[in-house]
Amino acid sequence: MKINSNSNVQIAVVGLGLMGSSIVVSLLVAGHQIIGLAPIPGEKDAATSRIISLLKHADSCGILQRELGYYIQRLHITESYEDIAGCDYVQECVVEDKVIKEQVYHKIASYVRPDAVIASNTSAIPISELQGLVPNPQRFVGVHWAEPAYMTRFLEITCGEKTDLVIAEYVLNLGQSWGKEPTLLKKDIRGFITNRLMYAVYREALTLIEQGDTTLEDADKVFRYDVGSWITLMGIFRYLDFMGRTDYINTYEKLIAKLSNRSDVPAIMEKMVSQNAKGTHNCNGLYSYTEEEAQAWNEAFARFNKDIYELASKYRRLLLTKVV
Amino acid sequence: MKINSNSNVQIAVVGLGLMGSSIVVSLLVAGHQIIGLAPIPGEKDAATSRIISLLKHADSCGILQRELGYYIQRLHITESYEDIAGCDYVQECVVEDKVIKEQVYHKIASYVRPDAVIASNTSAIPISELQGLVPNPQRFVGVHWAEPAYMTRFLEITCGEKTDLVIAEYVLNLGQSWGKEPTLLKKDIRGFITNRLMYAVYREALTLIEQGDTTLEDADKVFRYDVGSWITLMGIFRYLDFMGRTDYINTYEKLIAKLSNRSDVPAIMEKMVSQNAKGTHNCNGLYSYTEEEAQAWNEAFARFNKDIYELASKYRRLLLTKVV
Repeated sequence: MKINSNSNVQIAVVGLGLMGSSIVVSLLVAGHQIIGLAPIPGEKDAATSRIISLLKHADSCGILQRELGYYIQRLHITESYEDIAGCDYVQECVVEDKVIKEQVYHKIASYVRPDAVIASNTSAIPISELQGLVPNPQRFVGVHWAEPAYMTRFLEITCGEKTDLVIAEYVLNLGQSWGKEPTLLKKDIRGFITNRLMYAVYREALTLIEQGDTTLEDADKVFRYDVGSWITLMGIFRYLDFMGRTDYINTYEKLIAKLSNRSDVPAIMEKMVSQNAKGTHNCNGLYSYTEEEAQAWNEAFARFNKDIYELASKYRRLLLTKVV
Repeated sequence: MKINSNSNVQIAVVGLGLMGSSIVVSLLVAGHQIIGLAPIPGEKDAATSRIISLLKHADSCGILQRELGYYIQRLHITESYEDIAGCDYVQECVVEDKVIKEQVYHKIASYVRPDAVIASNTSAIPISELQGLVPNPQRFVGVHWAEPAYMTRFLEITCGEKTDLVIAEYVLNLGQSWGKEPTLLKKDIRGFITNRLMYAVYREALTLIEQGDTTLEDADKVFRYDVGSWITLMGIFRYLDFMGRTDYINTYEKLIAKLSNRSDVPAIMEKMVSQNAKGTHNCNGLYSYTEEEAQAWNEAFARFNKDIYELASKYRRLLLTKVV
């Protein structure tokens, strides 16, 4: 694989919805010239204004090193796949539909070099399945971003069965140059890491709630005030080191036998889906919302994201301590 | 039960180790006069200086409403159980040893009114077991604090089988008057809520790590940067509302079948225990530490706790939105 040095890597983002636009901004902020490809005809103008609006938000958060105009000038929005021909790295973030993704990959692959990296933002479809849709599947890798992409250090890199580890490590390196703290999952497990761990929490919490042992509100409270007071600094396991207790094994043995092993879907989740409950998006969710409250949560999340990003940045130096 | 109004509630804290001292400070800050009982002879002076030192820390964090001297003057440290005779609420936080706790309860109960609330900070022994050691067990309740008690809104209230719900709700109300956001667990489940949910995470994460699917460091990264960027604001379930997706049920169905249901102890945890690995406390943990690094983590945690407490406080108003 011939790859340019990080600063000269030619990058395209295909799919310019909310996530794709946010990724474009993150990559612009990281110093790249970006080709943004809007695959749906007529989407170009909306995508352009969305990206400029996000750039302005990034500016208001103080994360732009240069003037807004500099970044806008380094952005090329197009509807034509021909424009991505020279790219080294193509980030796909179209809808989670395998048929649509297949069409998109077919077009990408017919224009870029056979060894250009193709990365999918999917969080729903296994990388091993998707890479089967691409010629030279060894250059295909999962690169999963979090929202807002330019305000988080999260980046989840996942290998499919056929992904070349050299490619994955190249992307890991790229991700670091974008100011991320990328994780590398060498095996394409269902749900990657975050989802796997969070669904283990959903299963246990919803079971306790269904049994009447606790409530949705109280489960949220313990995560906000207990877990929330250290997780951003320490993650799961360093906190165990910090607590320094050697009685965990006793607690583990006692607790593990009590944990839910059920495989059915909890009723509360079925109910939400049958009601088409989209939470703050349609004021129907696990909690009740007025329009104003839903809006207040959306605004709060944007502010909180900025606040926690800045807070976490103050503690980055510490994270150089290595695992045993 | 005859109970004074919140501001006049007479409170004693029995057991003045790190946790007990921190609880004393939290209750002083909340406006109470406090009797601190050091049950181990000769512990009184060390406890006094520890509490004053924590009060100074609270002062440096800007959470004292009055001068330091005011709080010190409202604190009475004693080794004599006679001094707690007039108390309405006794918070026990001695070591997690049932035999020692039984001796302590016996002494407490022989001095306080038969209907005085006795609360245990235990996180290891079931409340239903402990309350059997106390005359009039209906006034016994679990009140579990987090560290540092004066810098978190976390408070976990747990009923044993015999706890009078009126007592639990009285304590819930008291907890709110202390500036906490208490949770109420009406049934004494193993591990309460936080531990139950976190052990579900440990099981899943350690299984993925043992299988070589991910690493300790990467599991920590996803929690720091992904989960960590919203959990303090939203908790587990409000974030689902915010994401507003109705495809969770599909993901749930696919993922749930993959989650670990094992009941054995992961090897990594056995190894830590056999090595007496106390993490930052003896520079032997899941991560490696020099003395300086361990110290840096301890200092960082104290600073982070203050930072995240202040950050979370900015968003408290929003949390009035009610559950459906």
